[in-house]
Amino acid sequence: MKFKFSKMHGCGNDYVYADCTQQEMSNPEAVAKYVSRYHYGIGSDGLILICPSETADFKMRMFNADGSEGKMCGNGIRCVAKYVYDHGLTDKNPVSIETLAGTKEIELTVENGKVTEARVDMGKPETRPRMIPMITDHYIFVDQSLVLRETSIVGTDNKTYKEKFFFNGTAVSMGNPHFIVFVPDVDALDLEDLGPQFEHHKLFPEGVNTEFAQVLDENTVKFRVWERGSGETLACGTGACAVTYACMKLKKAGSMNKPLNVHARGGLLKVTYCSENDHIYLQGPAVEVFTGEIEIPDCEL
Amino acid sequence: MKFKFSKMHGCGNDYVYADCTQQEMSNPEAVAKYVSRYHYGIGSDGLILICPSETADFKMRMFNADGSEGKMCGNGIRCVAKYVYDHGLTDKNPVSIETLAGTKEIELTVENGKVTEARVDMGKPETRPRMIPMITDHYIFVDQSLVLRETSIVGTDNKTYKEKFFFNGTAVSMGNPHFIVFVPDVDALDLEDLGPQFEHHKLFPEGVNTEFAQVLDENTVKFRVWERGSGETLACGTGACAVTYACMKLKKAGSMNKPLNVHARGGLLKVTYCSENDHIYLQGPAVEVFTGEIEIPDCEL
Repeated sequence: MKFKFSKMHGCGNDYVYADCTQQEMSNPEAVAKYVSRYHYGIGSDGLILICPSETADFKMRMFNADGSEGKMCGNGIRCVAKYVYDHGLTDKNPVSIETLAGTKEIELTVENGKVTEARVDMGKPETRPRMIPMITDHYIFVDQSLVLRETSIVGTDNKTYKEKFFFNGTAVSMGNPHFIVFVPDVDALDLEDLGPQFEHHKLFPEGVNTEFAQVLDENTVKFRVWERGSGETLACGTGACAVTYACMKLKKAGSMNKPLNVHARGGLLKVTYCSENDHIYLQGPAVEVFTGEIEIPDCEL
Repeated sequence: MKFKFSKMHGCGNDYVYADCTQQEMSNPEAVAKYVSRYHYGIGSDGLILICPSETADFKMRMFNADGSEGKMCGNGIRCVAKYVYDHGLTDKNPVSIETLAGTKEIELTVENGKVTEARVDMGKPETRPRMIPMITDHYIFVDQSLVLRETSIVGTDNKTYKEKFFFNGTAVSMGNPHFIVFVPDVDALDLEDLGPQFEHHKLFPEGVNTEFAQVLDENTVKFRVWERGSGETLACGTGACAVTYACMKLKKAGSMNKPLNVHARGGLLKVTYCSENDHIYLQGPAVEVFTGEIEIPDCEL
């Protein structure tokens, strides 16, 4: 199978984008695995198909590097919006894009006929534990302690004490589950060690994405993210929204209806929590790096 | 700057290939750094330019991911040969390619009009220590011990003993310096720990590439390689030749004038040591994965 593609990224979150408005792609799971490989494929975080939609202007389908289908990608959908505008598939602004997590409206910033940034209505944060999902008796899990491990120690008085290793954090879903922990210095953390302890915690039956956030000033926060199934990544759009929710809720940084600067390792995202409709808006760059054509041997599909 | 390219690999050793026979590329060092980056660029081990030559059919210039210029790449030169043949720049077979390590002759295996494999005359192994370069009084360094560290320990007799941590190995240059160590199980090694101890050893003033080789049977050997400046890589063409030299010299595997199967992590290389001219021939696959076009912003160059 031979197809043309575009390689794009949003804050370093990079995908192979294929225009499927005119022709379907068979077996996208296998294609995603093939193209995502470094050295032997194109090398990416996955594959995103741009498809026709019956209910919106376009539909996006995203496939992770392991071939599994994802619901939604905040950095990817901006690139989809840039693709359809820059490549002349539409001249609408805003443009609506259907995803497995619902239809999203995207406002485009256009310079010299090309999209440079896009702003996505990411919807309402979902805090009900059973919808996240999270197993807890709390009605809402905000700044509560999550115990990673317990050890028994014997004191000098020969009595046994329990020592708990825990972090305070906030749980929220932005279509996928997030747990946000504020720390004094994100760069000092050993995420390879910590991340999996959150990801596989028994209170999160479907796993969780964990954001470690550090407040820099009242309008600026930076974070590192450990994504379930992927490990540490350069950026996570829904994660930036979750961090913003936690900043507001705990009054750590930001104010309603004003963009908060959220620095991921891969770049800057601007996130606005709108008081009127309780929606969170994610704004950030979308970059086309190169275009190409690939032929995948039939034996690989 | 905008240019067309081809992404190719030989045993997983992947480069961005640009045809510079019609037009020069300015500042290839900066281009190599830009395109080699994962997520933000094309993602590769580096950039290879295919240029005109006054003394051979073509000239290749290779640039590593850090922008430094390399002399020669055994996996890369096969892809250059495939590129010039498949893209119709020549119909010669063999084809000669000038490199900073001299001009190499490459024989092509053609199937259905496309090159699938190529065989490169890699020249004579160089064993004189000052030419490798290696600091030693030995006339030739074959199966000699290289001490990585010494510690003093006090025995039960209260005397002080020196404990040496060393590996026996063989030093040879194939245009670049190699040190080959035979071990019973290459997969069990911690190369991140061991590799740098060889690379920066005081006996190798310009550093060294170290191959850890395991004999599987009389015609088959597998190896892992720690490349100076790069760390562990999927394959190293000159390293496969160096391993073959050591196998023959120590009578561990292989026989003269017959291909030895040398498995790198990234794929299979067949290496022949020719008794007539003392040259080593490297044969292996060359694969074009995709073609593309990239525009690099002027501010990046």
